[in-house]
Amino acid sequence: MTVLELAGIFAFAVSGALTAIRKDFDVVGIVLLAGITALGGGVARDVILGATPPAAFTSLGYFLMPVAAAAITFFAHPAFERLTTAVLVFDAAGVGLFCVLGTLKALPYGVGPLPAAALGVLTGVGGGVLRDVLAREVPALVRPDAELYAVPAVVGALIVAVTWELGWWAPWIGVVTVVLIFAFRVVAMARKWRAPTAWRR
Amino acid sequence: MTVLELAGIFAFAVSGALTAIRKDFDVVGIVLLAGITALGGGVARDVILGATPPAAFTSLGYFLMPVAAAAITFFAHPAFERLTTAVLVFDAAGVGLFCVLGTLKALPYGVGPLPAAALGVLTGVGGGVLRDVLAREVPALVRPDAELYAVPAVVGALIVAVTWELGWWAPWIGVVTVVLIFAFRVVAMARKWRAPTAWRR
Amino acid sequence: MTVLELAGIFAFAVSGALTAIRKDFDVVGIVLLAGITALGGGVARDVILGATPPAAFTSLGYFLMPVAAAAITFFAHPAFERLTTAVLVFDAAGVGLFCVLGTLKALPYGVGPLPAAALGVLTGVGGGVLRDVLAREVPALVRPDAELYAVPAVVGALIVAVTWELGWWAPWIGVVTVVLIFAFRVVAMARKWRAPTAWRR
Repeated sequence: MTVLELAGIFAFAVSGALTAIRKDFDVVGIVLLAGITALGGGVARDVILGATPPAAFTSLGYFLMPVAAAAITFFAHPAFERLTTAVLVFDAAGVGLFCVLGTLKALPYGVGPLPAAALGVLTGVGGGVLRDVLAREVPALVRPDAELYAVPAVVGALIVAVTWELGWWAPWIGVVTVVLIFAFRVVAMARKWRAPTAWRR
Repeated sequence: MTVLELAGIFAFAVSGALTAIRKDFDVVGIVLLAGITALGGGVARDVILGATPPAAFTSLGYFLMPVAAAAITFFAHPAFERLTTAVLVFDAAGVGLFCVLGTLKALPYGVGPLPAAALGVLTGVGGGVLRDVLAREVPALVRPDAELYAVPAVVGALIVAVTWELGWWAPWIGVVTVVLIFAFRVVAMARKWRAPTAWRR
Repeated sequence: MTVLELAGIFAFAVSGALTAIRKDFDVVGIVLLAGITALGGGVARDVILGATPPAAFTSLGYFLMPVAAAAITFFAHPAFERLTTAVLVFDAAGVGLFCVLGTLKALPYGVGPLPAAALGVLTGVGGGVLRDVLAREVPALVRPDAELYAVPAVVGALIVAVTWELGWWAPWIGVVTVVLIFAFRVVAMARKWRAPTAWRR
């Protein structure tokens, strides 16, 4: 589980660093945005659960990972032909991993399956929203042209919460859910799927 | 009190959903913005008070109300001739209710009347600020042309905090305060009242 | 220490009030932005540490200082020839003071030197980021042309955290660090120093 967590932190940190590079932030801004993107959602979840200080501040691994990811991205970013796409793909991976892990982290606190799923979604999308607000991008979460960004997150978190409540939870369900969220998001971007918007006069 | 709380959640959720519709968010973005607007201020207050997990995450009613409000708004929004005005009116109702309820929630934590009033204001305006930041609107709270947005909130929260400290508190005071905040805000919008700004060279 | 803390609150509150005046906010918006800028970083730190309710909400001095600073700025602001520069100078003073004090506040919670330094940086820059997000400015923290804004904050917080861990801590180190952070930032602005950005294709 820690391995998956570090993978999610890495994916989000890369998405944050790429955003910072696209915005011409300096090296410190790149590291900070990488760290905020990678740890913001989890810190928000832990603070809301009252699990303070958050894991991100007590275990050094969570803490050094974004720095490492930022350093790698700093030099490797030209490998990504189109920065925007790369940001979205890494972001999608982070969302998938953190939605599942965040929900699992919240369930034992007895907040009920629905709130636990909401905290999973917060863990999954919170860091990305902070990244976009700080970089003054329209948060992908609410971007009119966001190809079903939140749908896979919500559905994935609900799958985890419900299977857990029913006692059907098994690690493979988590892995499958992560893959589903990631794949759905990537396909939705490629195919430009849209969720319905309210009809206007 | 729970009835008033649900009413405030409903009002804020509608204001969030209408903002999302005005911004052409998809259905998921509408539900999320409705929920964040309705619960954001109260969650911030509870987290600051250390009352975690916040009520919004422990009682299902708080949680389903925004979803219901978003669903209703999704279909009913054309009833509102001018979305912007509708957002402001529902927002004003939410501010009035949450300023009073938020202050009452904070007072027993012994933070003193002034901080309790500040937490009441946070409860009242926090959700709307999150809504506007996520929707990339200028937060009404700090909009130069905001017709006395914060004044009624601050005054109302202070009335509750002071009467409580003096032992004069009675439920009717809360009801009157809610009505006053709401009415003052609506009249201020209609009459385009302005608070003084600093003079410029 | 409380004196330094109040000085930092004053500096940040002035920077917030000046920003609000530059944006033509009304008097209430000025007081609110002053308070959020002055107390936001510390509240975030305390909430993350689980030290709730935060000091800002329990001791009245922290609370009235921003109001006083806003009142003074409201009338005195024309004394500042160029508001933007004045904001940055007061902001730099606040960053220096809060980075050191925030790190010292976090260390006893046993989160380790690196996370403590990060919380010091959060204390130092958090309020300014909130100020800029609410005023819809590009946060100085991530502004491409921000002359080494975060570097002195990070370095200063690390100096405090490391000397503390090594048992070398002494108050004069804190004072020197505050002066260094402030001086470095001001000189960096005057000389238009830049930190390296990632190279682009």
